[in-house]
Amino acid sequence: MIETVTLVGIGTGNPGHLTLDGQAALQGASTILVPRKGAGKDDLAEIRLALLDRLGVAARVAFFDYPARDENLPYLERVERWHDAIAGRWAEAAGEARDVALLVWGDPGFYDSTMRIAARLTQPDRIRVLPGITAVQALTAAHAIPLNTVNGRILTTTGRRLREDGWPEGAETVVTVLDGDCSFTALRGHGLTIWWGAFLGMPEQILDYGPLDEVADRISATRVAAREKHGWVMDTYLLRKAP
Amino acid sequence: MIETVTLVGIGTGNPGHLTLDGQAALQGASTILVPRKGAGKDDLAEIRLALLDRLGVAARVAFFDYPARDENLPYLERVERWHDAIAGRWAEAAGEARDVALLVWGDPGFYDSTMRIAARLTQPDRIRVLPGITAVQALTAAHAIPLNTVNGRILTTTGRRLREDGWPEGAETVVTVLDGDCSFTALRGHGLTIWWGAFLGMPEQILDYGPLDEVADRISATRVAAREKHGWVMDTYLLRKAP
Ligand SMILES: C[S@@+](CC[C@H](N)C(=O)[O-])C[C@H]1O[C@@H](n2cnc3c(N)ncnc32)[C@H](O)[C@@H]1O
Ligand SMILES: C[S@@+](CC[C@H](N)C(=O)[O-])C[C@H]1O[C@@H](n2cnc3c(N)ncnc32)[C@H](O)[C@@H]1O
Repeated sequence: MIETVTLVGIGTGNPGHLTLDGQAALQGASTILVPRKGAGKDDLAEIRLALLDRLGVAARVAFFDYPARDENLPYLERVERWHDAIAGRWAEAAGEARDVALLVWGDPGFYDSTMRIAARLTQPDRIRVLPGITAVQALTAAHAIPLNTVNGRILTTTGRRLREDGWPEGAETVVTVLDGDCSFTALRGHGLTIWWGAFLGMPEQILDYGPLDEVADRISATRVAAREKHGWVMDTYLLRKAP
Repeated sequence: MIETVTLVGIGTGNPGHLTLDGQAALQGASTILVPRKGAGKDDLAEIRLALLDRLGVAARVAFFDYPARDENLPYLERVERWHDAIAGRWAEAAGEARDVALLVWGDPGFYDSTMRIAARLTQPDRIRVLPGITAVQALTAAHAIPLNTVNGRILTTTGRRLREDGWPEGAETVVTVLDGDCSFTALRGHGLTIWWGAFLGMPEQILDYGPLDEVADRISATRVAAREKHGWVMDTYLLRKAP
């Protein structure tokens, strides 16, 4: 019976993103739940194992497999049922263990469902969250740019929402995650500058930036080529009205 | 002559927020610029020194004093001139040193001017930014809540902008920093929930949350009391429409 869940934000692929608190939590953990490699679509399971190896973690590593999603259900319900099923896999993998830890990509609070899965297994006050560097922070650090303008607002959104919304009225800085479709290409003609990054923090890291109208096609092409080369790609970008 | 500037995000007061990369950068630095205690309004200079001490950093620590701001100038110009003056103080403190490092509160890209000051002294490609845990991440981790709703947008803003804008049309999650005036008190009657935190990550940490209409006065009172007790206070909060 799982009683406490520790979610350790590990950053975005650079082992140096791990915080000292995160390191201590992993080194002190007794059981760590690690997903087995998914449908071969990314290397994230391997990165997690390499990180544990590098830290010399003594915990029992309990593997779980991701269940299949029921594609017949409507989107939100499909996600709910999928999270229920993952929670079941955690419980199975944990066995007798009461305290489990998980390595969460980036920050556990940032566009991630691990906290919602943990909430199915234990009380909110038994979930311990250790923050980690997000993909957006890895992006602004890599480009050495501030996320916000002076006293400015920042809108963070997803590819899907950006496509639905278009360039939001009055927006200053817009940051997008979870965009499989280069939704920025639909925002030409607004006088925007883009700062883009893929595989941030990883040896494969790719950066590009410039006036959106000029560089949108180049970035789309880079993304296609990167996905062909590596079999998968993760990217994020910041858009700002030129000053 | 300063040639390279390394900005190390140190998180929000918890030494365990430091990343392994940040730790290595500080341990490898030859000169670290540290502000002297300001007008006694906060303890941040002391926290920086305590962190260096704990890491056993061998670098020369070069102190600089913050210049005065010219209160006669209009806001934006006053800030520009102030940053110019700080850059001058850095150069003085650095002396012969070519490579300097600075400890930046939270993340260097998040509502912080250190990068803009560095840009006055060196080329953009000579500024190395190491991301750090922000106050917003410390907030969501402490409350064990996700920053975003599923597939949702996040608006990050300042106290000043939130007062000007009111509850933004169509907003889902709003996060506020740099609010000296409990601007959330003006947002009663919108069916909002607030998650609030002060001194996040520090021994003095205070948390509160609940329906805004019910807890706004209590949080304002807590903030006043905290400022009286400690002489200063730093807080941040997340607002969300009740589901
Ligand atoms: C499910 S979200 C998880 C975000 C994660 N919790 C974080 O804090 O960054 C995945 C999205 O984050 C972004 N992302 C994550 N890692 C990335 C990386 N190394 N480089 C670029 N984008 C990344 C991409 O937009 C991707 O679609
Ligand atoms: C000048 S901004 C710097 C933000 C910093 N770069 C970061 O990444 O969090 C200062 C604001 O951040 C927030 N803040 C910083 N540290 C905090 C803490 N320990 N607890 C609560 N709020 C904090 C407050 O809103 C404060 O007004």
